[in-house]
Amino acid sequence: MSKLVNGTSIKNLPWEECPKGFNGPIWRYSGNPIIKRNPNEPIARAYNSAIAPFNGEFIGVFRGDGKDGIPHLYVGHSKDGINIEISEEMIHFVDEKGNPIPDTCYQYDPRVIPFEDRFYIVWCEDMKGPTISIAVTYDFKKFVKLEAGFMPCNRNGVLFPRKINDKYYMLSRPSDMGHTPFGDIFLSESKDLIYWGKHRLVMQSGWEWWCGTKVGAGPAPIELDDGWLVFTHGVGGNCNGFVYSIGAIILDKNDLGKVLYRCSRYLLTPEEKFETDGFTSNVVFPTCALVDQDTGRIAIYYGAADTVTGLAFTTVDRVVEYVKKHSR
Amino acid sequence: MSKLVNGTSIKNLPWEECPKGFNGPIWRYSGNPIIKRNPNEPIARAYNSAIAPFNGEFIGVFRGDGKDGIPHLYVGHSKDGINIEISEEMIHFVDEKGNPIPDTCYQYDPRVIPFEDRFYIVWCEDMKGPTISIAVTYDFKKFVKLEAGFMPCNRNGVLFPRKINDKYYMLSRPSDMGHTPFGDIFLSESKDLIYWGKHRLVMQSGWEWWCGTKVGAGPAPIELDDGWLVFTHGVGGNCNGFVYSIGAIILDKNDLGKVLYRCSRYLLTPEEKFETDGFTSNVVFPTCALVDQDTGRIAIYYGAADTVTGLAFTTVDRVVEYVKKHSR
Repeated sequence: MSKLVNGTSIKNLPWEECPKGFNGPIWRYSGNPIIKRNPNEPIARAYNSAIAPFNGEFIGVFRGDGKDGIPHLYVGHSKDGINIEISEEMIHFVDEKGNPIPDTCYQYDPRVIPFEDRFYIVWCEDMKGPTISIAVTYDFKKFVKLEAGFMPCNRNGVLFPRKINDKYYMLSRPSDMGHTPFGDIFLSESKDLIYWGKHRLVMQSGWEWWCGTKVGAGPAPIELDDGWLVFTHGVGGNCNGFVYSIGAIILDKNDLGKVLYRCSRYLLTPEEKFETDGFTSNVVFPTCALVDQDTGRIAIYYGAADTVTGLAFTTVDRVVEYVKKHSR
Repeated sequence: MSKLVNGTSIKNLPWEECPKGFNGPIWRYSGNPIIKRNPNEPIARAYNSAIAPFNGEFIGVFRGDGKDGIPHLYVGHSKDGINIEISEEMIHFVDEKGNPIPDTCYQYDPRVIPFEDRFYIVWCEDMKGPTISIAVTYDFKKFVKLEAGFMPCNRNGVLFPRKINDKYYMLSRPSDMGHTPFGDIFLSESKDLIYWGKHRLVMQSGWEWWCGTKVGAGPAPIELDDGWLVFTHGVGGNCNGFVYSIGAIILDKNDLGKVLYRCSRYLLTPEEKFETDGFTSNVVFPTCALVDQDTGRIAIYYGAADTVTGLAFTTVDRVVEYVKKHSR
């Protein structure tokens, strides 16, 4: 069985045991959604966001769609990883010299990647077309935005949580200007997070209905002794639009662009009312997975219906076994 | 008046004087089109291609759409830059170790950029989405393809013909998977042609009808003492589809991402039968401009109606004056 490596102990990781008789690979938190509509004055909907352990508590970056309908990024704090207080002031990025950068009009779907002594924030924003931006922070007060490493149109950039052979690696999902009726996962390499290249296709959307339209990476990859576990989103289309589910793959440790296991079944699909009903119905969209190295417990944060934030649980053993068992 | 710098003497540059009484900035060759339908056995249509001076003659890389409808790249030779003989065997690229690379199914719109002692070929090909590829050749026999520096979806990559501050620079036009109803010009920077970054928006499509849908770079930029002259394609839409015209801009010498002059008028638009009528009607699409440093004469090669190749002429003085006069 695959084992976690290079992980972190998170003693206060949010956790609930699997409900008796539940036979799926991931179970929902009983108190979902953990962030409801209108979490504070300026924000109408907070979702597709990410947190990380920080000084014995948790801190994160949140997508907050304003009451003008425009998404920006906000810092959020939590003692327990469940009750989250989101700032009412959006993040204002600075450049590498510390000079303010004008706020862009669309900033969304942040991932937070703990990385050595710092945290990288990777998100999508408008550059006359959606593209992937990267910022670094040490304290969640000052966020230094790096020069553009990616071009439009691209979304769902997800950075690996450490250098591999002295290179940075990013998964992303090239897109179009709109709701994008296609989506495959690509891998990119960089020496410095500024210049990216050696782009490769990793995985295309599938023949399985739930991921037949597009697939993209979700939370930052989780390192195992024999691979990288990546929770994904998979999208299928019905006559009313798209349905977003949570999937998973395992990438080869020695060749990040190679998919060792690809779960043919979704791990979680919209079923609860807060997932099937909202601003964009039928969406579960994972953007953060906290893993406790000691127990192998995983807490998955996911956006639901582009409206609220849900929490779900699994373990490394349980999810890896499921992915391998149902791999194609 | 702007002057050419860092150019090449091309004694045998194709040339015809401007017809008496003609008042436009660019005039067509009287023998157009110079490449007609079915130029050889495997190729149905050769267009959107580029040549360069080579050993006192000319050599180039041509887009040849096969009779199966699939475009590949072919070497072509010419003594006079007008009568061109295209190979019947497509180019088979090798990697940096000299190993063959499988032919991709779509390869099109090559630019040929003379660069110090070598030539770079920049073209569009399929990587589960159109993207920009780069190869280097010294002899037009062996073409070494570099690792992917660009991701889908992107087209019309055009490399600057020399390093600037020890960096390579590329213009490109991010796109979608299809015929792309949008298009802006971006600038990217690289130290090595493999890893690209510091991407910037240079120019958006315009309010002028002829370039209201998209704009993209055409031939490699032409160096002036006070700027870079870039012939462009501009695209407007009518009720039947797109119309492609030739435009021009001048970029700042000290800040490549800054447009000093943007000609509000097209320089050439489909008017002749071979331009208005063909596989894709109403297209003139410039992909090559040969410039004689001694005389300032320019020979522009352009695809016409995605079917044949046309040739047109101007001079640096004439076109720069026109661009500046009608700049907005």
